[in-house]
Amino acid sequence: MSEYINVAVDAMGGDNAPMEIVKGAVDAVNEAGNVKVMLLGDERALHSELNQYQYPREQIELVPTTEVIEMAEPPVNAIRKKKDSSIVKGMMMVREGKCDAFVSAGSTGAVLVGGQVLVGRIKGIERPPLAPLIPTKTGVCLLIDCGANVDARPSHLLQFAKMGSVYMEHVIGIKNPKVGIANIGAEEEKGNALVKETYPLLKNCPDINFVGSVEARDIPAGAVDVVVCEAFTGNMILKTYEGVGATLISAVKEGLMSTTRSKIGALLIKPALKKTLKKFDANQYGGAPLLGLKGLVVKTHGSAKAIEVKNSILQCVTFKEQAINEKIKEKVILTE
Amino acid sequence: MSEYINVAVDAMGGDNAPMEIVKGAVDAVNEAGNVKVMLLGDERALHSELNQYQYPREQIELVPTTEVIEMAEPPVNAIRKKKDSSIVKGMMMVREGKCDAFVSAGSTGAVLVGGQVLVGRIKGIERPPLAPLIPTKTGVCLLIDCGANVDARPSHLLQFAKMGSVYMEHVIGIKNPKVGIANIGAEEEKGNALVKETYPLLKNCPDINFVGSVEARDIPAGAVDVVVCEAFTGNMILKTYEGVGATLISAVKEGLMSTTRSKIGALLIKPALKKTLKKFDANQYGGAPLLGLKGLVVKTHGSAKAIEVKNSILQCVTFKEQAINEKIKEKVILTE
Repeated sequence: MSEYINVAVDAMGGDNAPMEIVKGAVDAVNEAGNVKVMLLGDERALHSELNQYQYPREQIELVPTTEVIEMAEPPVNAIRKKKDSSIVKGMMMVREGKCDAFVSAGSTGAVLVGGQVLVGRIKGIERPPLAPLIPTKTGVCLLIDCGANVDARPSHLLQFAKMGSVYMEHVIGIKNPKVGIANIGAEEEKGNALVKETYPLLKNCPDINFVGSVEARDIPAGAVDVVVCEAFTGNMILKTYEGVGATLISAVKEGLMSTTRSKIGALLIKPALKKTLKKFDANQYGGAPLLGLKGLVVKTHGSAKAIEVKNSILQCVTFKEQAINEKIKEKVILTE
Repeated sequence: MSEYINVAVDAMGGDNAPMEIVKGAVDAVNEAGNVKVMLLGDERALHSELNQYQYPREQIELVPTTEVIEMAEPPVNAIRKKKDSSIVKGMMMVREGKCDAFVSAGSTGAVLVGGQVLVGRIKGIERPPLAPLIPTKTGVCLLIDCGANVDARPSHLLQFAKMGSVYMEHVIGIKNPKVGIANIGAEEEKGNALVKETYPLLKNCPDINFVGSVEARDIPAGAVDVVVCEAFTGNMILKTYEGVGATLISAVKEGLMSTTRSKIGALLIKPALKKTLKKFDANQYGGAPLLGLKGLVVKTHGSAKAIEVKNSILQCVTFKEQAINEKIKEKVILTE
């Protein structure tokens, strides 16, 4: 391996592949001199995209693949059968140590399954959580887990809390991040069976800054830095977040176009509104890491544009530079 | 009992009691000639509030109580000990058939416990769900359950689906309401253990219009009329809804005040924006019904103003006029 941090990037996944993915990779290597991107996908298509850009040639390598895992494919089957897909091949490069990380905007299911089966868990990690960053009024918050671990157990949630803390502190740079467990009330005796069993584990854990239960209502205001939850719960919070945001913004925009008066007003408020809404865009932080694996796997939105792809690649650089996996081993495994 | 529909109203509960509660009661009897409101609370305070208004005297009766259940009190204890509180006394009036319904903006916990213990379940109903209406782009959607039934079983969710359908059809007036189960994906094989077990029960139920899984992302757009879920999940969706809405709107308002240009624009868009946001205000439909009890219990927001209290009282009138409990018995109990 070179002195570069090597990041494999699935150039065939997501709604805007390969165009935006390739552009994101080019932007990343133009910004960071210590990263090398392995672009996986259809050779001819990627060549023709790459030819449009200026960039240090030695920092992007093309890795041809002939298969593509579609969004709707049953993930387990797809991972098993499509050996020459960008997802399988990219993950194998992480497994074999040829790359430090893998970024994909493709099928979430395939990324989750592939992460577990192909990249493999760090020894001692029970379940690898998918942990998107969600925007809050004061910054950003890690929602861990939104992945495949529905019906998780208390010991899993304890590991999520520790991994989430390491990530927020060393990748996002929030010192001593506040950890809360998603709950239906702030009182300790509230909750479902899982929360009630998990609460004392978190409370008695010396390695995290546990502040107690957090109601979903208080997450957008920025009450905590890490929200610990089981994946079904995390999915409900994440998807409601996205749905309410999108619906409200589109309704406001429609409303602004409803009268001549409001249309003039809309022109005047546009710059201020844009600035405000940009704050609620978590893409600047990169994609959602799948933590606890032998290398980093990052899932970006299916709709990811170049900027999110670039930031996901740079996120992999920070992850490696900060030796997050070593810290996870130290904090999560050795303290158990 | 008179020919009136009798609604007991907790005049001591919520942030704006008794002022807004009394005003809401007055507005309700001024609007509907067939409702009689029993206002429960501190006699002197209520008299002095009532004296400010014109209304048909025979339609409001004052029922003095001397105790108040506070928001933070442990509900079970409070219900047991404070026999002369507005909540306990109001619920007892429903139990004894003196009233058809009870409305409170007070402690949710006390209302949930009191509903089960004091009013009592309809025979055959396993658990009474609390079912708030949430605003969507196209109207409104019933989120059932957001109450105390965490860790519910599949048979409970089936009853929720049937009760929710009856309510949406006959109180809100949506013909053949679409029922979805809150899930992490649209495919039938997705979900946690509870959803996977519940799905076939809903699919095979001839009494509801089941359309399958609904992702939380699609609820705000109005994908379904009834969202069936276990209470922990419902709470996450509801509270995220409220939190994201409030945070986003306050951020937009702050953004509009950031420059002179945007301030002028804000003045121009104000009427249109107000109209848009009003659409996302579910208060016009009243509070959240606690279904499956021997009478109707309605929980309004702690922050409820007169308009929500009035609409909650009128909601009780529709509930009684439409003989919802008879329909619930027919649909839910007799078909099992």
